[in-house]
Amino acid sequence: MLIKYLNTLNVIKTQILRQNIHKLSTMKFLTQEEAINVDLELFNEYKFSVDQLMELAGLSCAHAVAKEFPIKSDEDKREALIIAGPGNNGGDGLVLARHLSLMNFKPSVYYPKRVDKPLFNNLVKQCELMDIPFLDSCPDVESSSKYRFIADGLFGFSFKPPVRDAFKDVMNLMCHTKTHVCCIDIPSGWDVEKGAREGDAIKPYMLISLTAPKLCAKHFNGAHYLGGRFVPPRLSQKYQMDLPEYPGTELCIKLN
Amino acid sequence: MLIKYLNTLNVIKTQILRQNIHKLSTMKFLTQEEAINVDLELFNEYKFSVDQLMELAGLSCAHAVAKEFPIKSDEDKREALIIAGPGNNGGDGLVLARHLSLMNFKPSVYYPKRVDKPLFNNLVKQCELMDIPFLDSCPDVESSSKYRFIADGLFGFSFKPPVRDAFKDVMNLMCHTKTHVCCIDIPSGWDVEKGAREGDAIKPYMLISLTAPKLCAKHFNGAHYLGGRFVPPRLSQKYQMDLPEYPGTELCIKLN
Repeated sequence: MLIKYLNTLNVIKTQILRQNIHKLSTMKFLTQEEAINVDLELFNEYKFSVDQLMELAGLSCAHAVAKEFPIKSDEDKREALIIAGPGNNGGDGLVLARHLSLMNFKPSVYYPKRVDKPLFNNLVKQCELMDIPFLDSCPDVESSSKYRFIADGLFGFSFKPPVRDAFKDVMNLMCHTKTHVCCIDIPSGWDVEKGAREGDAIKPYMLISLTAPKLCAKHFNGAHYLGGRFVPPRLSQKYQMDLPEYPGTELCIKLN
Repeated sequence: MLIKYLNTLNVIKTQILRQNIHKLSTMKFLTQEEAINVDLELFNEYKFSVDQLMELAGLSCAHAVAKEFPIKSDEDKREALIIAGPGNNGGDGLVLARHLSLMNFKPSVYYPKRVDKPLFNNLVKQCELMDIPFLDSCPDVESSSKYRFIADGLFGFSFKPPVRDAFKDVMNLMCHTKTHVCCIDIPSGWDVEKGAREGDAIKPYMLISLTAPKLCAKHFNGAHYLGGRFVPPRLSQKYQMDLPEYPGTELCIKLN
């Protein structure tokens, strides 16, 4: 009886594994142009506001890092450094910082080039009023060891090189720190399709792909999550994303 | 050894129970004026946009109902009726419908009095493009039995009687249906502080309090959830909300 039960369990387990492997092998990795078009359709056709999707994206990043770096005891490090860039990837980072703070982490934000738009000013204000510190200068490689992880919200899928002077310090930090770097959607500075460029490059510990992975994620073997559970099925079908199914109420899935 | 282990487990369990009872007994129930002021502060001082908070509120409602009515097998009913009123409570309902649809429920929306504002038009468009049906007329009590639950997003904490003609059918449905009614923040038509009014009143199966429970929730003994994990600690302290701690990455807590 017990053996029969264990056998049944094994069959179920194999089926689940097969299903997941199928899902991963058929899942679409978007080109840069597709990623840009998916974004445009979400805003222009599906009428999402940037506020809405940034909130959901940043929240799913918070869930992914909280799963990857769970706080299990009072001794666990809670300090995290969030790097916010000048675009929507930076906005995702600001939202991430706020939700991390609500989940008992202690995020600090480095936001070297502030964008003077209402959405971004408001995201900063929300963080400030939750007593999240904004750093005046970029931490050096050595002092970055105090953080449990560094979240990279510097550049997203519309980045084109070269890296501007204002971001050189923080790129240097993320390329050389010994602290785990967790990249939001795209490791900053990577080619969206081909992965790490020649020379110094971020070697991410973790990547959180939003909506669907981009081609560069094929060159990444670390902890890979998918977040952004807001893609309408019609859009997913149009781009043949073949996304894995999010279980229950989960806002992110670990792919790898 | 095993007995020692079990004893330790029991001690931990008792401590957790005590802590929760403490939390529930000290938790603040907001007056109508406090609820209005908390909302105003979130928008005016903390600079949240309505889009942001409505998205988080609706999402936490989706998590709460998905926990209370889990889909465990293909036989489980997935149809749900979402009632959307003309205010922000209705907006929460439209967001709820969209997230339920992404979590494999089959929501239909009844939205008797549409609001011609960009935010609401966009929320409707998002639902329509996810093939969520909008009903032309209010289902009668008998036909409402096909739904697993009815989500009440008709009126929120700023409602003042009398109920307008356009909403009489749907109030009648929610007062007399045999299907479980799940109320968003306030059971529609209830006095925000005193609970059910005289005459016909909704008898909710489930209540999802957002940010903090309002005084009327003291008159409710059913499945009570708290959602809206976005309250900044300073605001919570100012109103002495003494909210229970959300575990892990949870977006809602079952209080009762």
